[in-house]
Amino acid sequence: MANDWAAFGSDLHLELRGTRLRAGLRDALREAVRSGRLEAGTRLPSSRSLAVDLGMARNTVADAYAELVAEGWLTARQGSGTRVARRAAPRPPAPSLPKLSASPEQGRPPSPPSGAGRTAALVHNLQSGTPDLASFPRADWLKAYRRALTDAPNEAFGYGDPRGRPELRTALAEYLARARGVHARPERIVICAGFVHGLRLIGEVLRARGVRDVAVESYGLWLHDDLLRRAGLGTPALGFDERGTRTEELAGLDGCGAVLMTAAHQYPLGGALPPDRRAAAVDWAHASGGFVLEDDYDGEFRYDRQPVGALQGLDPDRVVYFGTASKSMAPGLRLAWMVLPQELAQEVATARGAVDRTSSVPDQLAFAEFLRSGAYDRHVRAMRLRYRRRRDQLVAAVAAHSPETRVSGIAAGLHAVLALPPGTEQATLRAAAWRGLAVQGLDRFRRPTVPPTLDGLVVGYATPPDSGWQGALRALCGVLP
Amino acid sequence: MANDWAAFGSDLHLELRGTRLRAGLRDALREAVRSGRLEAGTRLPSSRSLAVDLGMARNTVADAYAELVAEGWLTARQGSGTRVARRAAPRPPAPSLPKLSASPEQGRPPSPPSGAGRTAALVHNLQSGTPDLASFPRADWLKAYRRALTDAPNEAFGYGDPRGRPELRTALAEYLARARGVHARPERIVICAGFVHGLRLIGEVLRARGVRDVAVESYGLWLHDDLLRRAGLGTPALGFDERGTRTEELAGLDGCGAVLMTAAHQYPLGGALPPDRRAAAVDWAHASGGFVLEDDYDGEFRYDRQPVGALQGLDPDRVVYFGTASKSMAPGLRLAWMVLPQELAQEVATARGAVDRTSSVPDQLAFAEFLRSGAYDRHVRAMRLRYRRRRDQLVAAVAAHSPETRVSGIAAGLHAVLALPPGTEQATLRAAAWRGLAVQGLDRFRRPTVPPTLDGLVVGYATPPDSGWQGALRALCGVLP
Repeated sequence: MANDWAAFGSDLHLELRGTRLRAGLRDALREAVRSGRLEAGTRLPSSRSLAVDLGMARNTVADAYAELVAEGWLTARQGSGTRVARRAAPRPPAPSLPKLSASPEQGRPPSPPSGAGRTAALVHNLQSGTPDLASFPRADWLKAYRRALTDAPNEAFGYGDPRGRPELRTALAEYLARARGVHARPERIVICAGFVHGLRLIGEVLRARGVRDVAVESYGLWLHDDLLRRAGLGTPALGFDERGTRTEELAGLDGCGAVLMTAAHQYPLGGALPPDRRAAAVDWAHASGGFVLEDDYDGEFRYDRQPVGALQGLDPDRVVYFGTASKSMAPGLRLAWMVLPQELAQEVATARGAVDRTSSVPDQLAFAEFLRSGAYDRHVRAMRLRYRRRRDQLVAAVAAHSPETRVSGIAAGLHAVLALPPGTEQATLRAAAWRGLAVQGLDRFRRPTVPPTLDGLVVGYATPPDSGWQGALRALCGVLP
Repeated sequence: MANDWAAFGSDLHLELRGTRLRAGLRDALREAVRSGRLEAGTRLPSSRSLAVDLGMARNTVADAYAELVAEGWLTARQGSGTRVARRAAPRPPAPSLPKLSASPEQGRPPSPPSGAGRTAALVHNLQSGTPDLASFPRADWLKAYRRALTDAPNEAFGYGDPRGRPELRTALAEYLARARGVHARPERIVICAGFVHGLRLIGEVLRARGVRDVAVESYGLWLHDDLLRRAGLGTPALGFDERGTRTEELAGLDGCGAVLMTAAHQYPLGGALPPDRRAAAVDWAHASGGFVLEDDYDGEFRYDRQPVGALQGLDPDRVVYFGTASKSMAPGLRLAWMVLPQELAQEVATARGAVDRTSSVPDQLAFAEFLRSGAYDRHVRAMRLRYRRRRDQLVAAVAAHSPETRVSGIAAGLHAVLALPPGTEQATLRAAAWRGLAVQGLDRFRRPTVPPTLDGLVVGYATPPDSGWQGALRALCGVLP
């Protein structure tokens, strides 16, 4: 009871992977007892409630408990529940925990420069890039899926249009126009399996058209850079200042055929590109025949101000718009979309058709139904409230514990940036890892050619489930200056 | 009544695409009346029963009927149902029909050499490559999906293992060992979105390893050839004789790092590779360090003999096994799998992860549940009976109408080859198109370097729905010598 189960328990699910759910839970619990993180006498939640919390079958949890009771780590008594056993004898060393499963959006992957070396106790996860997976709207999704599958014409189960199902493209065109100011006609939309997938298709098409370089922002995901380079493209980085990405530099870049931007909410720094720089990007594309690749990864989440509409509306013939359900719903759905200029639509559809044809048809039809029925709007509204509350709690907690720390990029999205005193980022990351907190430093997102001038933490406040959020926040505050 | 509605009606669905279902149905019916294919006085099925047959909403059909009644093409009278109107006046020309939607497995796409030019009235479809889409087990699939979605742990909705969900890989390993003699460990399986997708990943990996050529069979899908060539690989064709693909030629091919084969059921010619030639392929791979890429596209469907086990069982370290749900379930699911040699598993998983990460997680979990629950076995058994019956009817009909025509490749799969007298293939295809029959000639599947020595039709007998099958069969018999 002395122990803070609520803050600790549910983060366990981050350490569990694969089929070995029961074994993973058992090992994680054993390690928590062995290390003293769960003190003797602590009462564990009922197997039913932990199962709900972890999204596991109740039997899985009950079996893991039973095994640990049999091994002497836990005790179970009628009427008193399951508790951590009083230590009687020295424990044998437990097997090491499975590692935290990696998200593809963690930044530069090979041997991260941060202090993430100590991974055994990463019980708090504030890495950005993943929404709260516990909030996936299972019941509503299932309802849409059932309806879509029941109503689908037989031909829907065949090899279909590589652009995707017309039902979904029609529903998206309506939604994107309404919610993001995107000028989208269904025939210019191509459904894909995620932003990275779409970027890869575009990269191939641009390369085949003879494009040499695609400019990128000073800060962004290593993965995107890497992908473009694998497609044979150069990736010069545009400069960055307090007003955002210096799109005016595009005019001076020879051989640059496109620019990849997060105009509405720079990733990860968090600002919205000011109007003159939005115009500069589109004007450059218009004058040079180039394209703006607009990664609108979290366009659904705006808090304090009028949403910044998509750049695409400024010039649908020169902007490729990318949206995704990975942040608003869940990455596991593998549903994203591109709105393409007329001149690229056919080439991208052909490229898609030659690789994996199209995305799961029942999922596409279900998502169309989810959009049409209003369930998507309801879900996004609910998540916006939840994430906004978390953001407010983050800002308040930082203000209370570390008033000198500036929090930025908070008007939108699922992450914030906490500025650190120059030269302290690596030490802060090491301290975080020591406290079991997985979080990323800005340096991970810096393009190799950009000088390291900013120290800061990128805090993904959407990532933990509700029950793990307060603990994660406390761990974060504990490492701030 | 004079008219054979049962044989004609349901094939209509092939001509319908997209959101314009009602308009498509209306246009197709109008065209059928205008052209005389539906004679005056013919009674149409009830809107309810046609809706079931076409997998449409009843209202869609009822609305299309109502529109045609209003236009004077049909008449509706209480107690007498909907009938084709007596022609009173010359009809205005109808808008042209939407074209038959293309399957990616039709063979060489650019301006096919066959007589498929006349597409306006392709009401019978015997093109191979697609199963009977009306037989998709919607209710059982939905049951599996509901269960999978309910039981899924929260982490399943995140960015996952690029190999795919462990639940599905585990269920597949069990199934493939049992049903196809595949030596499959879950960690060597990578889920993909179709055979073509898997081949593309393998092509990339092989190219990156320095492989120059991938040998192919004399007959096969143009698409596969093209895909390998786009990956920068040469595609020399192995010879072919009455015993099948001359795998003994592999030893003489310099720079060849892999061979693509349909060993269990040559596509499209239909034979099983004899044991000595299976051994020759595997021995070559073992001796040269090359790989056999085994496309087991219809391994579920064997009729008269013991199933021919997968080649993969002979040497799991040198054979890449590809299986798919596209033929056994439906292409629209976009679910397929590769079983990889140890030395390729990681590279292929990385390649997958860098493109589109993984397939839809709910679908993967649903398919795992579908396999585990026995629903897949039941569905395959039911489809096997149905397709076998069709095959028997095909053989009997050909024997009755054209006793000289040899039917081959019928021990397995979803298609058969009807041999034609030398030099008559093109004329037969033109006659087929004239009768509204979409069917493919062998020449479409011939590699460009292989001399044209075989004339024949590739008949996909699984393609039509039950109600369209007899009509398609009659149209086919009508064009045979």
